[in-house]
Amino acid sequence: MTGKSPFEALSVETLAGRLRANGALCSQIGKDTSRWKVREVGDGNLNLVFIVEGAEGAAVVKQALPYVRLVGDSWPLPLKRSLFEYHALTRQQARAPGSVPDIYHFDEGQALIIMEYLSPHIILRRALIEGRQLPNIAKDIGLFMARTLFRGSDLSMATKDRKADLALFADNVELCDITENLVFSDPYFDAKMNRHTSPQLDGIVAELRADRDLKVEAQRMKHLFAANAETLLHGDLHSGSIMVTDTETRMIDPEFAFYGPIAFDVGMLLANFWMAFFSQRGHEQNGKRDAMRAYLLDVTVDTWSAFRAEFSHLWRTERDGMLYQKSLFEDQGDRLGAEQALDHMLHSIWTDLLGFAGVEVHRRILGLAHNADFETIADQDLRARCEAKALKFGRHLAVNRRQIHSIDEVNQLAALIERESRI
Amino acid sequence: MTGKSPFEALSVETLAGRLRANGALCSQIGKDTSRWKVREVGDGNLNLVFIVEGAEGAAVVKQALPYVRLVGDSWPLPLKRSLFEYHALTRQQARAPGSVPDIYHFDEGQALIIMEYLSPHIILRRALIEGRQLPNIAKDIGLFMARTLFRGSDLSMATKDRKADLALFADNVELCDITENLVFSDPYFDAKMNRHTSPQLDGIVAELRADRDLKVEAQRMKHLFAANAETLLHGDLHSGSIMVTDTETRMIDPEFAFYGPIAFDVGMLLANFWMAFFSQRGHEQNGKRDAMRAYLLDVTVDTWSAFRAEFSHLWRTERDGMLYQKSLFEDQGDRLGAEQALDHMLHSIWTDLLGFAGVEVHRRILGLAHNADFETIADQDLRARCEAKALKFGRHLAVNRRQIHSIDEVNQLAALIERESRI
Repeated sequence: MTGKSPFEALSVETLAGRLRANGALCSQIGKDTSRWKVREVGDGNLNLVFIVEGAEGAAVVKQALPYVRLVGDSWPLPLKRSLFEYHALTRQQARAPGSVPDIYHFDEGQALIIMEYLSPHIILRRALIEGRQLPNIAKDIGLFMARTLFRGSDLSMATKDRKADLALFADNVELCDITENLVFSDPYFDAKMNRHTSPQLDGIVAELRADRDLKVEAQRMKHLFAANAETLLHGDLHSGSIMVTDTETRMIDPEFAFYGPIAFDVGMLLANFWMAFFSQRGHEQNGKRDAMRAYLLDVTVDTWSAFRAEFSHLWRTERDGMLYQKSLFEDQGDRLGAEQALDHMLHSIWTDLLGFAGVEVHRRILGLAHNADFETIADQDLRARCEAKALKFGRHLAVNRRQIHSIDEVNQLAALIERESRI
Repeated sequence: MTGKSPFEALSVETLAGRLRANGALCSQIGKDTSRWKVREVGDGNLNLVFIVEGAEGAAVVKQALPYVRLVGDSWPLPLKRSLFEYHALTRQQARAPGSVPDIYHFDEGQALIIMEYLSPHIILRRALIEGRQLPNIAKDIGLFMARTLFRGSDLSMATKDRKADLALFADNVELCDITENLVFSDPYFDAKMNRHTSPQLDGIVAELRADRDLKVEAQRMKHLFAANAETLLHGDLHSGSIMVTDTETRMIDPEFAFYGPIAFDVGMLLANFWMAFFSQRGHEQNGKRDAMRAYLLDVTVDTWSAFRAEFSHLWRTERDGMLYQKSLFEDQGDRLGAEQALDHMLHSIWTDLLGFAGVEVHRRILGLAHNADFETIADQDLRARCEAKALKFGRHLAVNRRQIHSIDEVNQLAALIERESRI
């Protein structure tokens, strides 16, 4: 199979035949295709994902489909997203070594990436639903975000290179469009693909859609998302895009990558921890989740803290791009000038991440793409109670983001909402 | 001459011979080259500009040089800036009809644009130095900015088209680099190409370069300029890029065009009116300029007012892009929601334009590219007094931009600084 054949979706049956001559795959798992075992495991919304095990090892084969898997071929989606995923993975590997799967092979024509099989890693979202407390995720994800987001910006890159890369990723239009509409707009009006736990949430949904301040803030976040091409984002950094063991953390699936605001990745990620927090009540049948709830809030504190610390470290040691140049500060003996600018920058990331977090919570409960944290709560009334709390929390963050000073305040708010049945 | 010949700079002597077969030019000015009169009139910093008059009319031939004309071939600058100028002019013509010269011909290989000869137009900066009060500039420029900046953004364009155009203009790296360094950074440290009226300004220059708050704000403006790809900017909209008669106003020279923040064009433009204001004292030998000073402050008020009015009008009538969609506001009977978002947007343009204006004033007095408003004041002491006032004004705007509520306040500040000899 070469990049010049017309695109053809792989299947469990055809994969071995079509990839038997792929040197990268063979050297990873062994040439003897009679020993290959192929499983399709894609549980995301968009793509095919195969695990291929051979005599000498295993690999993942991920292939884009020309449509949205979750919806079907009524919603076409271009194969080129695979190209953006490939480029994002290589940049993330360079900027935050060890944080993403190794790439063995990329075939643009077949929209296919062959990469490291992570085992015994599981999806972070699943671990959190099961109530597992993973000791390293806050630090690992905080470092990943700080390193990729700092090093992909004009704080670090030659701006000529950033602009060329920006032009490359500007073509990832269709996946940006998904975020632009499904995240920032659809949840706030009666859009076709929306769904929510009904009728239980009907009241609060009507309330949110009539909430002028919320809608204005959501659109301001959309404006920032679309216009502020600050750095190369992962673009879809939620707990379903992270694979974990007790000691390892890897970020996957950056096909939504494009140049956007630093705060977007951070806010989306934290929102998923807060959703995990509000969903715990729905998973308590097998034992209390008080410790898990406390753990999740700690994770948000520690992630933000790790991000801030690493971002600040890089600011002080690797700020070699054209922004906030050392020639204006350190080189003039003005170290505090550089610290003052850093404070401004972190403050603005903070304010914006709260906005992005609030919106992300809403779209996961009101939009098309829900998440398993809530979806796996079988009891609809119980699920709706969890979701309603998260919705109120999200609204508060999005609208009041400029008046919230610390993540402790946010977590006290989360705890208050969780505790009170009526709020 | 075709686009396939190697680039060769035109001269007064060679122009007729090289362009005699150019149909667009001949149909404009007549075929009989023996009647052609060619003058080179480029008084800008970068390019060759010829006026060619024939039996039937006249045209302008503008050609980029592979280096910065102001500095010489020690500073190479790519010819492709001509391509960006051409594309910017066509977009501006479509978005604000009649506001730019008509284009007759573009030759990418020769980096050459043949366009309308504007006559009896003169450069606005010259008119202001001469003390001429032009009645229409505020309205004309306000409309131009509102229309081009609104219609080039996701408020109006299909975002797919904006992203493709963003990718095209992202290649205008070298001209962005000029702005990034010469405007936002060089004035604030001892950069090689800086110059200022010396020794008169040495004291205040040292003061500004030690001014931490100012330097941090200037870099924050640079960050916004580089990252916030909100709309297609003119990119160099000062009074030297505008040609006027008493009744007509045309914007020229958009070779710095790229996707940046709306507030940049507006702030740079207003800064040039404020510089004209502070420079009037240096041109008073031929009569008092009190009325001219009052006129210039009125122009800033009226320009900003025309911009706001037209931007608001377009917001209400042409907001068909993906931002602040009507489906969330008007379509739900919530017109005030759209007004609330508009207020946020105008407020943020206002705050940012003050920052850009402050920095633009500084770079025109401390950096490489000075402007004739001050440069034509022969008396160095007098010039320095004018410049010092402008520098103080610029510093105040840049650092206090969030606390300044109205353009009247800004103008009261300007009048106060102008009046007081020690401030």
